[in-house]
Amino acid sequence: MRQITGEQLDDIALGAAVLGTGGGGDPYIGKLMAKQAIERNGPVSLVDPSELEDDALVIPSAMMGAPTVMLEKMPRGTEIVRAFEAIQAYLGKRATATMSIEAGGLNSTTPFVVAAELGIPLVDADGMGRAFPEIQMVTPTLAGIAATPMAIADEKGNSAILNTIDNRWTETFARTVTIDMGCSAMIALFAMSGKQVKQATVHGTITKIELIGRTIREAQGKNDPIEAVRAATGGFVVWRGKVSDIERRTETGFARGEAQIAGLGEHEGQTLRISFQNEFLIARTEDETLVSTPDLITILDAETGEPITTESLRYGFRVAVLAMPCDPRWRTPEGLKLVGPGYFGYGGDFVPVEQRFGSGAPAHVLDGPGENA
Amino acid sequence: MRQITGEQLDDIALGAAVLGTGGGGDPYIGKLMAKQAIERNGPVSLVDPSELEDDALVIPSAMMGAPTVMLEKMPRGTEIVRAFEAIQAYLGKRATATMSIEAGGLNSTTPFVVAAELGIPLVDADGMGRAFPEIQMVTPTLAGIAATPMAIADEKGNSAILNTIDNRWTETFARTVTIDMGCSAMIALFAMSGKQVKQATVHGTITKIELIGRTIREAQGKNDPIEAVRAATGGFVVWRGKVSDIERRTETGFARGEAQIAGLGEHEGQTLRISFQNEFLIARTEDETLVSTPDLITILDAETGEPITTESLRYGFRVAVLAMPCDPRWRTPEGLKLVGPGYFGYGGDFVPVEQRFGSGAPAHVLDGPGENA
Repeated sequence: MRQITGEQLDDIALGAAVLGTGGGGDPYIGKLMAKQAIERNGPVSLVDPSELEDDALVIPSAMMGAPTVMLEKMPRGTEIVRAFEAIQAYLGKRATATMSIEAGGLNSTTPFVVAAELGIPLVDADGMGRAFPEIQMVTPTLAGIAATPMAIADEKGNSAILNTIDNRWTETFARTVTIDMGCSAMIALFAMSGKQVKQATVHGTITKIELIGRTIREAQGKNDPIEAVRAATGGFVVWRGKVSDIERRTETGFARGEAQIAGLGEHEGQTLRISFQNEFLIARTEDETLVSTPDLITILDAETGEPITTESLRYGFRVAVLAMPCDPRWRTPEGLKLVGPGYFGYGGDFVPVEQRFGSGAPAHVLDGPGENA
Repeated sequence: MRQITGEQLDDIALGAAVLGTGGGGDPYIGKLMAKQAIERNGPVSLVDPSELEDDALVIPSAMMGAPTVMLEKMPRGTEIVRAFEAIQAYLGKRATATMSIEAGGLNSTTPFVVAAELGIPLVDADGMGRAFPEIQMVTPTLAGIAATPMAIADEKGNSAILNTIDNRWTETFARTVTIDMGCSAMIALFAMSGKQVKQATVHGTITKIELIGRTIREAQGKNDPIEAVRAATGGFVVWRGKVSDIERRTETGFARGEAQIAGLGEHEGQTLRISFQNEFLIARTEDETLVSTPDLITILDAETGEPITTESLRYGFRVAVLAMPCDPRWRTPEGLKLVGPGYFGYGGDFVPVEQRFGSGAPAHVLDGPGENA
């Protein structure tokens, strides 16, 4: 166990945006709320999953909806605990700790608000090891853990408890209730025992993103911030270039689009196309797929090494594309069915990033679910 | 207390369609489910509100959504109790009895399913004395009783408990969850004490609709079924004629439209226009408003005296238009604000039907909330 103060949150939010792969919401909002909550209530205790009793009750907390709306609607930090209190009341039990459900963006920092306001520890883990757009896309789903009972609450005082037959139905109901709540809601879901957290989540997430964030901060103004970030993430720099086109559209509630990056250096004359659906999901040249979901694709500012979200990406930006291996569970047939390229409508099999770019590590092709599987 | 068997349900469903004022869903579906439930479990005890202990727990039950979908999706009667069981589990108490939330159409008979399946009595009362399209439009709302905690469940096994800041928000959330559930859902809401049922609901509803239904059945083939229905309802026959035009459209989830009825007899040469939004809400000639919500407007088949729903109304039908006074609480300023002509977007003040058509009864104009109030 260690204490997290407001100062560490700068690094945590910065690192979260790297694992957020362009989506996951603006970490700035969550950081702001978390800092205020820590100012009011003192530091948050970060506990490793191994420190949990097997029968502990861990309830992850998050925000759902459009980050831009959240910024306008979220004046008081105390409101974010409503969903958490609703689920505790429904279960008739108090949680031992809370947790992040995703490693990227906004929801890396919002659980600090719950932890600080309620005086409970935060578990150093998450349910993805990155960001994904839908509720069912977490490693607990792969372990057969139900998202429900789930609580959802708005800032006005409305709330609901959902109980669904599977985690995809949870996503369906929670998405429309969030829209009714004004496109932003607080949620508490995937209540787990300490034993389940140990087995079914991605460990060490907060420590990892804090390290990534600190690396970026310390590398700024030095020789090669990109190489420093690469080393901190265990990833691969797969492209360097200049944004030559960016196209965005909103479809079925997602921010979809494509960025084109004209190559520089060894990729001079070639163009990389990165498609996104909230998150960057697949990076392709004219000839081949370089990286695809569930592996992580992050676009970094070539000068500062800072991650760029899909919303802030602009024509002319000089960038480096960083690819990182995902949690191994996402590469199983069940994992690929849930979050592989086929689920998002992209064809082709998944090839692990270290197989294409690494050297030394044993590499093998894993069968993906095929197109639209 | 008296026992209701399957045979009485024919009259109850028929009478319910009269108070359903063209909407409230097809009573046939509810009747079918209720008959099957009574066949499986025996007759249902009907209790008068006065027979309830003050601290009894009464939970009304209903279906929500599109009746046509319900017919396709509702094979097993046991599914309708899911929402009821969910709300009992949430409250941690078993209900003393259930109740109809509206007097019209489908939801007069569906609570018989809950009563029969769970072996609890049905209260001889309802929350409207007629049918209205939205959840908040009940006399308990006027008495300050909350619709929530409310349970909503589908036939697949999904359910939700809603807690909202007012009854209009309940309508908002329940409506979209119903759509996610495939446009049909079971609901349990407006949990009340026995004392609240005595004070805040419309009493004697089941007995009244049973009497109306029996009157129609017994009058068929006799001289004047319309006059018999009129006498049984305490209403006024305000028009006789032939449907000369019917126009329907679906707007914001409602079946809206207008029927034109060319006058016969004393109204020869004139046309009555009846506008509906699920229910028939206002009946106007070129010169004046004859009847408007919250008073009841029902279209009866001129030959059989049977009520015709908005969906089954067709060009050429010979009909009589029956107007009935609503529960006095709907005529208060608060009542008119909730369900008066202004709420539905019709202009003009509300004039009680017995003032325009009655003789003898003391009549007075009540101030409506004005246009779009």
